Amino acid sequence: MFDVYEKLKELGLQLPKVPAKGGVYRPSVRFGENLVYISGCGMSCDKPVNGVFGREFKKEEGIEFTKSAMLNVLAVLEAEIGDLNKVKQPVKILTFVASDNKFYDQPYVANGGSQLLVDLFGEDLAPSRSAIGVNVLPGNIPVEIEGIFEIKE
Amino acid sequence: MFDVYEKLKELGLQLPKVPAKGGVYRPSVRFGENLVYISGCGMSCDKPVNGVFGREFKKEEGIEFTKSAMLNVLAVLEAEIGDLNKVKQPVKILTFVASDNKFYDQPYVANGGSQLLVDLFGEDLAPSRSAIGVNVLPGNIPVEIEGIFEIKE
Amino acid sequence: MFDVYEKLKELGLQLPKVPAKGGVYRPSVRFGENLVYISGCGMSCDKPVNGVFGREFKKEEGIEFTKSAMLNVLAVLEAEIGDLNKVKQPVKILTFVASDNKFYDQPYVANGGSQLLVDLFGEDLAPSRSAIGVNVLPGNIPVEIEGIFEIKE
Repeated sequence: MFDVYEKLKELGLQLPKVPAKGGVYRPSVRFGENLVYISGCGMSCDKPVNGVFGREFKKEEGIEFTKSAMLNVLAVLEAEIGDLNKVKQPVKILTFVASDNKFYDQPYVANGGSQLLVDLFGEDLAPSRSAIGVNVLPGNIPVEIEGIFEIKE
Repeated sequence: MFDVYEKLKELGLQLPKVPAKGGVYRPSVRFGENLVYISGCGMSCDKPVNGVFGREFKKEEGIEFTKSAMLNVLAVLEAEIGDLNKVKQPVKILTFVASDNKFYDQPYVANGGSQLLVDLFGEDLAPSRSAIGVNVLPGNIPVEIEGIFEIKE
Repeated sequence: MFDVYEKLKELGLQLPKVPAKGGVYRPSVRFGENLVYISGCGMSCDKPVNGVFGREFKKEEGIEFTKSAMLNVLAVLEAEIGDLNKVKQPVKILTFVASDNKFYDQPYVANGGSQLLVDLFGEDLAPSRSAIGVNVLPGNIPVEIEGIFEIKE
């Protein structure tokens, strides 16, 4: 029996404030019996971080980017369900990686986000995932993650 | 208590015919208890509208494009469930915006579609959403929207 | 009453081994009452197949690519549920097609994957689908397919 917030503390992390919305949508939607969809989140940053992998960024930098984006996903999820210890499992994440035509390491970049979920919820509860390259993301951000989580009854 | 079809009328809109399928798939699939997945829809148009934002199109034009695509999504949904008043909530939309490498306003473009859902179902029932840029879409169309909806019991 | 494995045999196909994971994730996640999410799968190949449509590949080649990727999806699904005859319906697939800016035939390419589902489960159980172009995919593979399936009680 573990506590997600203690795990976060052990990792030296804390949830950011829920990110500002960038359009007409709900950051999260609860549906079905116990499912929550989280709208696509970018990373948090004090100053703008813009560009694509293979030009402005190397894959190694991406680990922190997707970790930060996943923390935003979790902040939105907490706002929806009140307590991250209610998470039964991460179901699926879709990680978009802004990429030059010659950048092929989207999975490496995406690992920063899914590893955080594994660190918090355990290896057995890793999410399913797709990681894809796109030529450009909103506001020229380098990564965006959306996800579905299942909540305990 | 509101009626979706009266709202459509107030907005001066009407549902288009269900768009022709562009391949081997079902336009909609009902699954789980009360969920419906709608296959990716483009916009309706009398003559071909082709190109990408940042080259052929400005962001302002995109509002009408995603509104039209969302009307197609709703036409498919109506064909599946018989009556749009049975919608409990829009759950999630994924809006693909064909974009030049320097076009960063995908959320602005996507708002045309999600605003229509808000106008019809209410602010509280806005969908969750991701809006992403892609370099090209089928048939060189500028936008494509897929969605999940939850239906009342 | 049909048997999926006999259909595979009739088609001269067999399920490949479950593909190696390319990162931190679960290949499949069972969730909700009877749903399974399958992580994005590429095609199987003896030697590397790399490139994008409109440059390295013609649309006709894509049919075999997405058919192979769908066989991988089904191999992962079988590993999760034990027997493909337990499939109630394919719910949704999302087919990413690595595309040059001037390649517009993503649906044609995607048909190779969805046609296989139709051949195995029947026309009435075709999946819902989106097919999109992206500038690049992990490892420079030409196609990637993720999917949701509903399982019989």
